[in-house]
Amino acid sequence: MSDLGAQWPSINASCQPFVERLVHEAESLRLKIHDLDNGTQVVDAGIEAPGGLEAGRRIGEICMGGLGCATLGTISGFEAWPWSVNVHTATPILCCLGSQYAGWSLSHQSEKGSKFHALGSGPGRALAGKEELFKALGYRDKAEATCLVMEVDQYPPVAIAEKIATACGIKPENLTLILTPTTHLAGVMQIAIRVLEVAIHKAHTLKFPLGQIVDGYGVTPVAPPGGDFMTAMGRTNDAILFGGQVHLFVDCKDSEAQDLAEQMPSTRSRDYGRPFAEIFKSYRYDFFQIDPLLFSPAKVLVTSIKSGKSFQAGNLNLELLAKTFGLSS
Amino acid sequence: MSDLGAQWPSINASCQPFVERLVHEAESLRLKIHDLDNGTQVVDAGIEAPGGLEAGRRIGEICMGGLGCATLGTISGFEAWPWSVNVHTATPILCCLGSQYAGWSLSHQSEKGSKFHALGSGPGRALAGKEELFKALGYRDKAEATCLVMEVDQYPPVAIAEKIATACGIKPENLTLILTPTTHLAGVMQIAIRVLEVAIHKAHTLKFPLGQIVDGYGVTPVAPPGGDFMTAMGRTNDAILFGGQVHLFVDCKDSEAQDLAEQMPSTRSRDYGRPFAEIFKSYRYDFFQIDPLLFSPAKVLVTSIKSGKSFQAGNLNLELLAKTFGLSS
Amino acid sequence: MSDLGAQWPSINASCQPFVERLVHEAESLRLKIHDLDNGTQVVDAGIEAPGGLEAGRRIGEICMGGLGCATLGTISGFEAWPWSVNVHTATPILCCLGSQYAGWSLSHQSEKGSKFHALGSGPGRALAGKEELFKALGYRDKAEATCLVMEVDQYPPVAIAEKIATACGIKPENLTLILTPTTHLAGVMQIAIRVLEVAIHKAHTLKFPLGQIVDGYGVTPVAPPGGDFMTAMGRTNDAILFGGQVHLFVDCKDSEAQDLAEQMPSTRSRDYGRPFAEIFKSYRYDFFQIDPLLFSPAKVLVTSIKSGKSFQAGNLNLELLAKTFGLSS
Repeated sequence: MSDLGAQWPSINASCQPFVERLVHEAESLRLKIHDLDNGTQVVDAGIEAPGGLEAGRRIGEICMGGLGCATLGTISGFEAWPWSVNVHTATPILCCLGSQYAGWSLSHQSEKGSKFHALGSGPGRALAGKEELFKALGYRDKAEATCLVMEVDQYPPVAIAEKIATACGIKPENLTLILTPTTHLAGVMQIAIRVLEVAIHKAHTLKFPLGQIVDGYGVTPVAPPGGDFMTAMGRTNDAILFGGQVHLFVDCKDSEAQDLAEQMPSTRSRDYGRPFAEIFKSYRYDFFQIDPLLFSPAKVLVTSIKSGKSFQAGNLNLELLAKTFGLSS
Repeated sequence: MSDLGAQWPSINASCQPFVERLVHEAESLRLKIHDLDNGTQVVDAGIEAPGGLEAGRRIGEICMGGLGCATLGTISGFEAWPWSVNVHTATPILCCLGSQYAGWSLSHQSEKGSKFHALGSGPGRALAGKEELFKALGYRDKAEATCLVMEVDQYPPVAIAEKIATACGIKPENLTLILTPTTHLAGVMQIAIRVLEVAIHKAHTLKFPLGQIVDGYGVTPVAPPGGDFMTAMGRTNDAILFGGQVHLFVDCKDSEAQDLAEQMPSTRSRDYGRPFAEIFKSYRYDFFQIDPLLFSPAKVLVTSIKSGKSFQAGNLNLELLAKTFGLSS
Repeated sequence: MSDLGAQWPSINASCQPFVERLVHEAESLRLKIHDLDNGTQVVDAGIEAPGGLEAGRRIGEICMGGLGCATLGTISGFEAWPWSVNVHTATPILCCLGSQYAGWSLSHQSEKGSKFHALGSGPGRALAGKEELFKALGYRDKAEATCLVMEVDQYPPVAIAEKIATACGIKPENLTLILTPTTHLAGVMQIAIRVLEVAIHKAHTLKFPLGQIVDGYGVTPVAPPGGDFMTAMGRTNDAILFGGQVHLFVDCKDSEAQDLAEQMPSTRSRDYGRPFAEIFKSYRYDFFQIDPLLFSPAKVLVTSIKSGKSFQAGNLNLELLAKTFGLSS
């Protein structure tokens, strides 16, 4: 087990005030607060309540454990679609992998046969530590209250909430579940805010030592919500694959920094070149057939803090972005 | 009466902490705090005190009831003038029309014959509910304290403060009046922050159902303060007419979204094509002769959240911006 | 002595909460807190602790006395390196010259002969008032606690802390010293945030009356940390000299505004045209041989708030930026 996380603070302690503020301002953010039968608090950001871009921005910061910053702005290059989100964090590996990465697979089948599946994101993951990733991080958190963010379009069954609370070692009434359907505004925003996490996770997939990633920031267009789930999921991926840019700062040899830069961009994947929804369909909707190296920003800059040299690779693909974003000509 | 505002929170409750912070930090923001004889608090942001860009930014957020966010940044396209302000809100219709729109006409003539006229903006409007617009919004607020922002270059008479307090149902000493002359920095900044409001109000003028506008953001150059009032007023309008960009998210049919996009930009107005000050002069300074459809951003993107399609229309006019902004060649 | 600062609030009162928050969040910001023997608190942002970009951003705001705002974003023009920082303040002269300018020269030689030298930046300068500059500002502050930021790569000796505390009239245990080595991420970030200060200081060097500078904002690329000190120092200067942009608002005659614009950019210096590290070397590392007028942004816009006219001068130099930033081709 790594000792990377030995010095990290409690991601749940930093996050809890952000969750409380979200709930406190639920009315203005157009969220619905609903208590499950076991007392678990559900924050609905797009199922029975509309949610919105600002709700999504705040949920994105909650995903990063309250230690990341997401601001809306504009970026050049894609004149028809200048709207973007800027992302940086206090501690990138803790925020992006220890909290934000949607790595906790949660499933339940009711007695009547209805199924619920979600990938949990947020600081609750670091309490449960169910994933292999936490061995690489060498990090576990302790807290009395926590939250998990799920990209789902239905309320979770009580059994799921119970399972999470038990795994996190907390009382069910101290658990908050935040729901952001991919087809809604809060959903597309909180996914865009993953641009830095996507780069760091790709570095991990490439077996780049996480302890050597010192810092980074990212920017990406915010995808328009697609009418249906498949379009929405395709667009949120494409926004990063074709429009995401990340700058990483690494502490390693130049050759390693250069290798990371050259292997990082989505353009290097064998599946690059078509909108994500088309790729997914071509694999008959079998997610595990997709090249795991596809999931990465379009363009990267990697700076070695040792030598001061920087390496760039990849490029934006505005043509495919315009196509996938459904821009009328 | 619409039931659009039935779920909206108190815009005065959200705004009051922002007003208190503005007053508390008056010295560093270079504002003058002055109490009228009846105890009403005046915040002077450009008459006897200089104010500044940051004061204007905060006043812009107060206009939006403390539920909107304005950040300074840069934007591409207009290389000589990259400075811009980004605007988004938690609840666009409430923030922009229920609070920010300068819709409350306030006048007073003293016994000696001197006249005072101002258009009130801010959360006090939702207490008084004097305007037709509040019927369309179906919203009224209740509070014990409030504020109103006025683009004037003189202190208001006590009689105006009394009139406002009475209409809002509050004590005069619980009223704060914030003054931002158009010729000063706080003035040009708080007007720039209206870019999203201008788009939403134009949608209302076009009779687009407000309940179908789900979200939006905007960006616009910040006009330089003009030396005289007419130049300043012209520039603040031109900044949005020639340089403003807005993205709206709507819940309606594609044909309606497309119609909205195509009718929205300033370019579609019969009066488009000259600096605002010239237009105003050509109508012999009769404001009501100007095409009400002129007041809108230069370029818009409208996304239907139902179908996921986006429609764009309009364009920036950097040549006219350079002219109206008084850039030396 | 000027009476410019007669109305200014306490820069230490506004700054102290920011210092306390930095220390409180030291773990997540990857800072090391160390107490010197006399109780002075050292915040290490890059010597024995890694620090990072967000730590540097917050330290930059502390340098401006808690009355300035620095946000990360992107800017167009330099496609290979879009990352930038936007800067504005509530009160530019107080924030930039009364606090942020690194003008307090501090030296100590131990009995064993080891030397320590640093230029102090931050609100402590306004307590000590050791510099000529404070006469031009007509400002002195009083406070019981303060902080100073130093661009050094070693911990200061107790004697330096004693000297500062005495000069500031505070107890040594109420002093916080924040250390940001130029070779680290927090260092390059807090230097980038000086872009507006650099412009205002240049105006002062040009003998432009400070009281006539009403407001301003700036944007600049964030330099990548160079591996060695000389490269790092060169890059942080070059980022502003070749990539910095500032907009100043002045209250003076048009001819004076135009003169200021034309004399302001780095391009007007006799030493302009080579990376800073090369210039420094060519003068055999004698800092005082360098043209003091070199230190300024690449491109400026100066708006006269009296006439409303704007004057631009200078230009970005992306070729030299790419060279100095160590971008691999």
